[in-house]
This record gives sequence, C-alpha cells and structure tokens, in this order.
Amino acid sequence: MSGSAPLAISMGEPAGVGPDLVLQLYQERKQLNLPPFLVYGNIKFLAQRQRRLRLDIKLAPGKPDNAAHIFAKSLPVFDFAASFSDQPGVPVPQAGKIVIEAIARATGDCLTGACRALVTAPINKAALTNIGFSFPGHTEFLAHLCAGGGEEPIPVMMLANDDLRVVPLTIHVPLARVPELINTQMIVRKARIVAADLTRRFAIKTPKIAICGLNPHAGENGTMGKEEHDIIKPAISLLKREGYDVAGPLPADTLFHLPYWRRYDVVLAMYHDQALIPIKTVAFDSAVNVTLGLPIVRTSPDHGTAFDLAGSSRASTKSMLAAIRMADNMTTPVE
Amino acid sequence: MSGSAPLAISMGEPAGVGPDLVLQLYQERKQLNLPPFLVYGNIKFLAQRQRRLRLDIKLAPGKPDNAAHIFAKSLPVFDFAASFSDQPGVPVPQAGKIVIEAIARATGDCLTGACRALVTAPINKAALTNIGFSFPGHTEFLAHLCAGGGEEPIPVMMLANDDLRVVPLTIHVPLARVPELINTQMIVRKARIVAADLTRRFAIKTPKIAICGLNPHAGENGTMGKEEHDIIKPAISLLKREGYDVAGPLPADTLFHLPYWRRYDVVLAMYHDQALIPIKTVAFDSAVNVTLGLPIVRTSPDHGTAFDLAGSSRASTKSMLAAIRMADNMTTPVE
Repeated sequence: MSGSAPLAISMGEPAGVGPDLVLQLYQERKQLNLPPFLVYGNIKFLAQRQRRLRLDIKLAPGKPDNAAHIFAKSLPVFDFAASFSDQPGVPVPQAGKIVIEAIARATGDCLTGACRALVTAPINKAALTNIGFSFPGHTEFLAHLCAGGGEEPIPVMMLANDDLRVVPLTIHVPLARVPELINTQMIVRKARIVAADLTRRFAIKTPKIAICGLNPHAGENGTMGKEEHDIIKPAISLLKREGYDVAGPLPADTLFHLPYWRRYDVVLAMYHDQALIPIKTVAFDSAVNVTLGLPIVRTSPDHGTAFDLAGSSRASTKSMLAAIRMADNMTTPVE
Repeated sequence: MSGSAPLAISMGEPAGVGPDLVLQLYQERKQLNLPPFLVYGNIKFLAQRQRRLRLDIKLAPGKPDNAAHIFAKSLPVFDFAASFSDQPGVPVPQAGKIVIEAIARATGDCLTGACRALVTAPINKAALTNIGFSFPGHTEFLAHLCAGGGEEPIPVMMLANDDLRVVPLTIHVPLARVPELINTQMIVRKARIVAADLTRRFAIKTPKIAICGLNPHAGENGTMGKEEHDIIKPAISLLKREGYDVAGPLPADTLFHLPYWRRYDVVLAMYHDQALIPIKTVAFDSAVNVTLGLPIVRTSPDHGTAFDLAGSSRASTKSMLAAIRMADNMTTPVE
C-alpha cells in the first residue's frame, strides 16, 4: 500500500443512490479535500446519471496506476462494458453482472496494493440473487474474494464514527437464532480479530474492549438468562488470559450512554439491533460500516440503495463521505 | 384526585440512594418549585440519613390530609414503626417489612384519591425475596395491590422523558424466551392500554404509535425471521381496524434516530434492550419509568438502588426529580 495509490470505489447498484453519492462527492472534491479515488463501474451510465443530477463534471476511463493523475481534472472510471440506461429506482438485470465484476476487480486491485482501500456503494441483494449471486451480502462475497481459493478469512462487521465503535457478533439472522449462534469460541475469535485490526488499522496499541451481555441487565446473576455465565464470561476469561483488555458482560442498556461507551475503544454486541440501535441513534449519518478481518481495508456507508432518492440529488452524502475518509485514514500512516 | 392532594413517595430500600434523593430534593423544594409530597417510610431512619448527608431539613409525621400543609416547613413522613439504623449499602432484614408496607399503604392512598400519584424509590429485590416477597418487582406488586382482590390490571412499563416514549412489550425475561412470549393478542392488548393512557394521562387525543420489528431490518420480508409477518402485522391490522394510528413493523435500528422517533408519540419495542438501549443512550438521566394500565398514576426513577452511592451525596437527583415532575404533570388537569 502506498499513500499515492487511489482508493477504489465500487459503484454499487445503478438504480440506487450509490452512483449519485460518488458523483456528488467528486464534484466537491476540492472543498472536501478528498484523496484520489477510482470508480469501478460503467462510464456511460455514470455520464447519464451525472447529467440527470445536473452536475458539471467530466469522466474518463482510468486504471489504478493513472487514477491519481486523472482525478484532478476528471473522475476516473474503471469501465466494465455493459449496455443499460439510467433508470433510478428500477434495477435492471443487465447491470447486475458488472456490479459484481466491479466489486471483484476492485477487491483484486486492493489485494495487490494497486489501490489502497475499498469503499463499496450499496448493492441490491434481491437484484443480484436473481442473476445467481449466492452470497448473503457484500461482506461474505469479499471474504470469498480475499480467500484466493484458500481458507476464507472471518470478516467482522464494525460500525464506527470517529469516536464510537460497535461490532455485532451475529448479524443478519432471526433474533430467535441468536442464542444458539453465540458461543465462546466465536466470541474469542472475533474479539482477537477486532483487537488486531484496531491496532493495525487504527493505531490503538491495546484496545479497550467491552462485551455486552445477551439478556436484560446482562442476565442479572443468572436470574434472566444463563448465556452470560455459560458462554460470555468464559470467553472474557480466556481473552484476559491472552492479555487483552476486556470488560463484561455489561448490561447493554446502560453501556451505550455516551460517557460509558467512550471509555472503550470498541463494544462487542451479541446481535444486530443491540449494536445498530445505539450507533444509529447517536450517529445516524456519520456511522461507517467497516469490515475487519480481511487482508484489505473495506468501508461502506451505513445505508442501503434508497431507491426513492436515486437520481434526485436529495440523498445525503454524509455517510459515503465518512466511509471515504475512514478508508483514507485507515491506510494513511500515522506521522 | 385533586390538585391539592400530595404526591405519595415510597422511600424504597433504606440501604440504597432512594432516601438520599427524597431528602436532597426536599431540601431544594423551593428553587425547584416542587409540589407537596408525603414520604412513606420510617422517620427515625430518614432523620439519621439526613444528618449523614449534612442536610438542614426538618421531618414531621404526616398523613395525606395534612401533608400539603406540613410540606412548607417540614418533610411529611407517613411513619411505619421499625427499628433499624442507617447503614448505606447494607440491606437489613428489619427494614424489608416496612419497605413493603410503605408501598402498599401509598398505593392504597392513591387508589382512594387521598394522594394524587405514586412515585416509588428503588427497592432491592434480593433483600425483599429473603423475607418472602414473591413478586418479580414493583410493577407486578402494584398490579396485585390495585386488583383489590378482583382481576389484576395488566401493567405496562413505559420509559419516557418529555418528548420520547418507549414501551418494552416483554421485560425481564431471557432474550431466548422473547420470540415465544410475543403474540398478536398481547401486542394488541398492550397497545390499547398504551393508547388509552396516553390520552387519559398525557392528553394526546389520537396517539401516533410505532411498533418495532423483532428481527434485524424488521425481518426484511421474511428473509430474516417470520414473526413480523405471523405475529406483528396481524396485530397492527387489528389495531388499525379499531381506529388506532399505528405504524410498523419498523426496523428498530433506524426508528430511534431522533427525527424519526419524534414522529411518534410512543414506540412499542419487542424486548427490554430494544427499548432501553435507545432511551438510555439519549436520555440517561432524564428518563422516567411510568407504569401504564393501572388505576393509579405511578412513576419511578429509571435506576436501581446504587448501593455504592448511598449516603454519599453523590447520587444524581435528576431521574427522581423527573419522576416527580412527570407524576405531577400526569395528574395536573390541562388548562
């Protein structure tokens, strides 16, 4: 990785707001002092969308090695041939193939170091499933791509803004399945990954980690659930013996009060809403989805395709901007 | 109920911060412009605690009919005979009996209208269980007391500050049991109680009610859980047919972003942390626990006994003050 390599941005679902955000942010690149980025997508479609948005920017074909040079005058696009027209809100099957190819190539260019980090715009899972995409989402696809045929890394989703970080240990599963999915080994493995990446990517030498309980009041000594005693405490003991700075299991309802939350570098939550409710409540627009545990740096805005806003200029660029800044910071050596 | 009747405050666990908060707030009654209240507890113990806190207040025996008169000069105490001394942080068995008697009598005086509303200071369940108290907590005990031997009302816990309200539909149960405990009938019953009490106690004519999903993204069309389709949507349909203004099932992670949350008069959440994480994240000190569904008005601070702070003057009076103000507002006729 090098400070002069561009960031890679995958364009995401053309019917969604991803392309809008990339184009709008490029337009403001000077005021925002953005680092050079290379968009992996389709140049003809992007040109249509930028006219729809009445932006005043040029687009040019680019590759990782010339993107930084092009960026000053034109938005560099790693172009994948495709023929579809701009229809905000309406996913077209012809676009699905290049959405996937763009992610794959961008990931490959990050793995070689040709690009510094990957920022992914939102995809539409339903549209991709129709053309045979079998992964539950971006994250699992990236883990597959990063395996290079070998053992897949364990991707760990983190939601973060500049000073608050939270990791859901289980994610897109029914709540009823959460208790069976959490186990001591999984908690320990993911905590190790989180700690290693907070050191490697965020320059936090010994991260302070808080781990939530699963049950109300973290089980209140077993009177409201046993998982704290049977599963979470053994994980914490093991991690402490390995030298990690870990606290818990802590009651989730009080832990996220900001003065408490800020005592920790990261909170590990047991399930999706336990993690996402607090971060979205306090950092709705500024939270970024960061994938830890991969050999590459990957961030994404913490929102979906927002079909109803695509092509309208009304989508907020805040979270995408935060994702770009975080990817930039995570790959910029600390002075 | 009459505007001149006092508020009833049950003293709660003597080893905890409840007595401190009552005494501290009485000391500041003028600056805070507090309405008259009558403390149900033990006058000798309270006198000891006030000396420990180095406050400068007088205490006097009182009853509902003379409390308002006494309040200007002395803190009126409905005295229950007991012999125990002030030991902050150490629950003593001799105190348990009068803790329970005080709640029972205060509730009775609210039922007759002799007192306007009940504010309960925190109790210590473990200490009371040891002397045969068989209720899971305050709320269930109050429902029992309010039944008067007849059918018990269904108490509904609401956490609220001045502009945010949330109701957990299941409360102090292991997370694994939540999916089996939520059902269409329970949601409908509790929603009706919430709506009726928001009208009766908060003067909201047609409350706007949001109902959370149980699963991530409210199940995302059944791909991450079926309870939204099988249980929650039928409840919403039924409530709509009855004329209620109900939205949902809504994804809990985005719903609590303040601008969205404020669109609704109340949010019904499926379980403890789904409700308490957002309210404690944004209103840690100012949230009040309000029991709906009872024939009396009952509020309490949203914290426990905090044994480590008892007798130290360091406990924050914010939540107790908010509980008193809310009880006062809920029983003051709108002009």
